[in-house]
Amino acid sequence: MIVSIIGGTDGLGKWFARFLKSRDFDVVVTGRDVDKGRNVEKELGVTFTRDNIEAAKKGDIVIVAVPINVTESVIREVAPHVREGSLFMDITSIKEIPAKTMEEYAREGVCVIPTHPMFGPSTPSLKRQVVILTPSKEHMSNPWFKKLMDFLEREGARVVIMSPREHDKVMGVIQGLTHYAYISLGTTLKELNVDIKESRKYASPIYELMINIIGRIIGQNPYLYADIQMYNPQIGHIHETFIKECIKIKDVVARKDRESFVNIMKEAAKHFGSEAVRGLRYSNKAVGAIIEEMEKLEESIGKEVALKHIYTGNIHYGILKDIVDDTIVLSKNGKEVRINIANVSLMGEEELEEWKKKNLNRYFYDISVLFRESVDEKIILKLLKGMFDVEILDVYQKEKVEKGFKSITFRIYSYNREELPKLKKHFLEVIRNIGGKERYKE
Amino acid sequence: MIVSIIGGTDGLGKWFARFLKSRDFDVVVTGRDVDKGRNVEKELGVTFTRDNIEAAKKGDIVIVAVPINVTESVIREVAPHVREGSLFMDITSIKEIPAKTMEEYAREGVCVIPTHPMFGPSTPSLKRQVVILTPSKEHMSNPWFKKLMDFLEREGARVVIMSPREHDKVMGVIQGLTHYAYISLGTTLKELNVDIKESRKYASPIYELMINIIGRIIGQNPYLYADIQMYNPQIGHIHETFIKECIKIKDVVARKDRESFVNIMKEAAKHFGSEAVRGLRYSNKAVGAIIEEMEKLEESIGKEVALKHIYTGNIHYGILKDIVDDTIVLSKNGKEVRINIANVSLMGEEELEEWKKKNLNRYFYDISVLFRESVDEKIILKLLKGMFDVEILDVYQKEKVEKGFKSITFRIYSYNREELPKLKKHFLEVIRNIGGKERYKE
Repeated sequence: MIVSIIGGTDGLGKWFARFLKSRDFDVVVTGRDVDKGRNVEKELGVTFTRDNIEAAKKGDIVIVAVPINVTESVIREVAPHVREGSLFMDITSIKEIPAKTMEEYAREGVCVIPTHPMFGPSTPSLKRQVVILTPSKEHMSNPWFKKLMDFLEREGARVVIMSPREHDKVMGVIQGLTHYAYISLGTTLKELNVDIKESRKYASPIYELMINIIGRIIGQNPYLYADIQMYNPQIGHIHETFIKECIKIKDVVARKDRESFVNIMKEAAKHFGSEAVRGLRYSNKAVGAIIEEMEKLEESIGKEVALKHIYTGNIHYGILKDIVDDTIVLSKNGKEVRINIANVSLMGEEELEEWKKKNLNRYFYDISVLFRESVDEKIILKLLKGMFDVEILDVYQKEKVEKGFKSITFRIYSYNREELPKLKKHFLEVIRNIGGKERYKE
Repeated sequence: MIVSIIGGTDGLGKWFARFLKSRDFDVVVTGRDVDKGRNVEKELGVTFTRDNIEAAKKGDIVIVAVPINVTESVIREVAPHVREGSLFMDITSIKEIPAKTMEEYAREGVCVIPTHPMFGPSTPSLKRQVVILTPSKEHMSNPWFKKLMDFLEREGARVVIMSPREHDKVMGVIQGLTHYAYISLGTTLKELNVDIKESRKYASPIYELMINIIGRIIGQNPYLYADIQMYNPQIGHIHETFIKECIKIKDVVARKDRESFVNIMKEAAKHFGSEAVRGLRYSNKAVGAIIEEMEKLEESIGKEVALKHIYTGNIHYGILKDIVDDTIVLSKNGKEVRINIANVSLMGEEELEEWKKKNLNRYFYDISVLFRESVDEKIILKLLKGMFDVEILDVYQKEKVEKGFKSITFRIYSYNREELPKLKKHFLEVIRNIGGKERYKE
């Protein structure tokens, strides 16, 4: 079966190309950039063409995966060429416009299923991911619909079905209102000339959280965010409602109408119901996570730490010397390195141990000791592992070994070569205390 | 030295009464509720009077700690009675109005220092807490100012000095704008009739975080939130700026002016500078914390857990049977209990161990074993502690003990009485493997 992905050389389109290829579909992708297309062809083992219409003609399934602002025109271009008996989908974050355009331009006998996969291209699979489908009733009785549902359910996706209008209303709030409010807050802080870094000095945890979310959102791809706002027919009403509420509360505050303010808050709380309590709890958790990391960092001063850079993935390993504002001072092989806290995360103890095993030189020393032959070396090893980085290399019982005894060869490890002699001495002391003795004694 | 706290029977006023009493001040508190006052008198060992003027006359230091909406009138009432040579302060979240009123009504020779302690009554001490002072230049040269600064610094507080106007501008953003935006979002969701719980099904992590913060804020004391808005002279300008920005972006979206939208976002991001990256990082952390707890809970299915109720502090201890949506199903002594996730937090392993030691019956069994007298029992105990909940009761070496040996009596613990015989058997097996033997053998 051939799947043609219009705009499959990038983003979520490319994700679906890779994913469907791995599920044994023949995949054709299109894109404007020929070089990129050739690379994707090689990378994923799919077929690339620059010709949207050719791809549309070929596909048993045709998926439009272009940016929101060109979705309508691309649908108009390809829809008349999608073969009768095929499945025709799009995967845009808005649904009214593409659904209407697909219905209008697709031929009789084509099954139209407008789709919004609620995840980004960093997701590993469809498992537990929400996929919203907005087909008309007519298309829901097409056999393609059942096939698609079966496929998505087999892959573990959580499928939600709603009308395109309902979708745009819901997403107008979940994406539209959220982005809109935080971008407006961001520009307000700019207009008020608030020094963001300075303001954090007096910040409440919730202000700090707000600043973090604003910073996150205004740092995203502005074209995508523009399109999410502009191509959702429901957004105008949502914006207007929000502005109306802002003006209402501003007026209540301006005329010092305490009772009305209290009522507004109470009514909103009533609408939220138990979700308000949930919010308190989860926002505490969110705030706590940040404080907790700071505390852990502060406790680690003077100790060895590994800091993982959140963008490059590089590990900075060394002794944490000090924390000055947002800067970590790390001593790395004797050199002082300064790292912005915002760019790194502190690796946990277990993760650090694993990283050290993989990345640092571990020095070792092998010691053969004698235990009575009745001794179970598994029990001995389990006890010793609580105190040493140790494994058993060999258990040997025949020739050259004193009668009634067996020889156990341990390998003890250290990241510090100079410490090995001391470690060996300590290890042997423990061994002697638990009934063992050194095999070769000078 | 006598400190009079006007409105010291509640909230932060009561906090300062307790704190200053612990620092050896004589503390007088006032309040309208006589019963409450008598209780505070007993609880804190301070003096209560209903008479604000009497308290004001007595104090070497007089602190106004009443709710924002009555701060101005209470200052007018008490200020003329504050003695010459005294220190006169308030601790309200707004500063222009109290500062102006104190300056106007206080007598010549009284040192006026309007103050905003940036913390709530759950804070244990002044350590690392931000305290904002907004005295005029004249009062900064009064000896009281130095005394106050020295005291705050000794206590580890972080003192910030600014003008009352500057304070209200900054707080108008940090508290005012934050509350205002989230309350407006809350009422908008109500106006749009968004089913909050349902909406979380399709939520992005950032929408969910926003919902949590809204829920938290609209669940707070609405009178306090009304006053923080209404008694800040800077708030009108802040509200208007925010509304202007919202309208600007709404218009840009309505006329599909993609380039202007992109510019607005880019300008805001430029204003944020490195704070935008910081925001991405910290919001990831905030989102991650919530996912992490859910994962930990899911991993704990079938295991013993202790869940701490976040309001009552009660501990629910039992076997985690299942998680259904937001509900935890716990088997508690064989009975099934259902608990809302939002109301509890999962105790960590170490915390759980400590809680069990304090709250559960620990059963134990004492075992005397013989080791050669050269053996160091401290090393033996250290090794055993990795595998058992064990301590040494006694080490005995004289009569009745086989020559060349010493007797060590261990106590091994278990929370499960039935498991003790099995535990004892396992313990003795380990002991035999490390050169020990049972002292009394049948």
